[in-house]
Amino acid sequence: MSLYPNLHKSADPALRTPRLTVVGAGIGDPELITLRAVRAIGEADVILYDALANDVLLDYARPGAIKLYVGKRRKEKAFEQEEIHELIVNQALTHGHVVRLKGGDPFVFGRGWEEMQYAQAHGLEVAYVPGVSSAVAAAGSAGIAVTLRGVSRSFWTMTATTESGDLNPELAVAAQTDTTVVILMGLHKLSFIVEIWTAAGHPDRAIAIIQDASTPQQQQIIGTIQTIEHLAAKHKNAGPAVIVIGDTVKHVIKALPTQLNHSKLL
Amino acid sequence: MSLYPNLHKSADPALRTPRLTVVGAGIGDPELITLRAVRAIGEADVILYDALANDVLLDYARPGAIKLYVGKRRKEKAFEQEEIHELIVNQALTHGHVVRLKGGDPFVFGRGWEEMQYAQAHGLEVAYVPGVSSAVAAAGSAGIAVTLRGVSRSFWTMTATTESGDLNPELAVAAQTDTTVVILMGLHKLSFIVEIWTAAGHPDRAIAIIQDASTPQQQQIIGTIQTIEHLAAKHKNAGPAVIVIGDTVKHVIKALPTQLNHSKLL
Repeated sequence: MSLYPNLHKSADPALRTPRLTVVGAGIGDPELITLRAVRAIGEADVILYDALANDVLLDYARPGAIKLYVGKRRKEKAFEQEEIHELIVNQALTHGHVVRLKGGDPFVFGRGWEEMQYAQAHGLEVAYVPGVSSAVAAAGSAGIAVTLRGVSRSFWTMTATTESGDLNPELAVAAQTDTTVVILMGLHKLSFIVEIWTAAGHPDRAIAIIQDASTPQQQQIIGTIQTIEHLAAKHKNAGPAVIVIGDTVKHVIKALPTQLNHSKLL
Repeated sequence: MSLYPNLHKSADPALRTPRLTVVGAGIGDPELITLRAVRAIGEADVILYDALANDVLLDYARPGAIKLYVGKRRKEKAFEQEEIHELIVNQALTHGHVVRLKGGDPFVFGRGWEEMQYAQAHGLEVAYVPGVSSAVAAAGSAGIAVTLRGVSRSFWTMTATTESGDLNPELAVAAQTDTTVVILMGLHKLSFIVEIWTAAGHPDRAIAIIQDASTPQQQQIIGTIQTIEHLAAKHKNAGPAVIVIGDTVKHVIKALPTQLNHSKLL
């Protein structure tokens, strides 16, 4: 028993099994996609994709595959979640293999699980292809390890807000610990995060903001709870950001300038 | 500034820059490696590798590349960490590009950061290639999302023991929360974990053990804190295990049997 993909091709479209593969595209750099994800894209009849770091990933699709954008543009949703659910099922019943392509890993703050659950309840075969998650890889791309021998033996990944938009109450719990805290989608709540860690008695704790991780635009801002708002105010980068709080942020491997080659794909 | 790999080839070996790329190989399924990792392996002059889920990954090396196993076999270390550090530097100074290939992500409970830090301090260029981590993907392969809307808005990843072999004191803190707790390398401490969650008043909390995630041997055992030891005793699987504790474990997508195809690589 495994959720691993059942990637067979049927020569006859009429014999295609309706099925859904939820696929993680990884972060930023389009080469941070897995071989299995590339293979799933190539075997898709329909690709439903979110705002991806790089649309070049869609080039792995076979000629004639249907590609539908179902993500958010700015704050407007192109589709409601319920519409995506129905689209998955309808497209699979009509065309066969639907690949749902999402940034990062589809089970980390995505709706990948819900989509699989709905699809399976409606008779589709389902499979999951994990991806490189910004929960780990954003810090790493800035030379920061989420765990580090002698410094941090765990990391706690959360969003800054709950579904209703309130502050996540787990932030205050995490601020009482020494774990590495990784906050996704939290930059708009930075001042609240600073308040929480200050109130917990940790104004000097190290904090990093990593934006556009693993892309040529990557920027990292590193400071303390006390200084980070001032430092962040100087930057005007609107890209996706990950916040990392904890002593491991004091241990940064400073990178040499690199020659990124984002056009070269296998 | 980025730690992203500077993957240039030099025609003349004498002009090769001594450098280290720490590469995550992903989990279990050898197709869960990224395109960038495959490219790094192909551009390595020397590969220092740990016990990998699948040695087929070494086939991406160019002809003539040196491949050295430096991991653990059973509980015996082939090399001490300090020896690995020296080996990285010496091999890079002699041959050029050293790839350090590790399962999962190299910055999650690996020594990847330390190796990069040492290498950089000794004059090497360094780069990091993230990988699919079992922190997220082991649960996912069993149909369990580490975060799930309405159920869990965070996950906390830790090992069961500290460097000295004692129980990780963060387990008791995590048992007081409602986060999804992901415990790596913890199966040998299962009875202690059960004790901690029982003492915290959560004997009925859901728990899963996922072994050999994303391989044909994958097994998952799902129960509660009260029942898991009994359930686990029936299984005699010695493969790497990830423990997941939290309400999200109650929400499992049951998979259909799949046809895994581990021989087909791009």
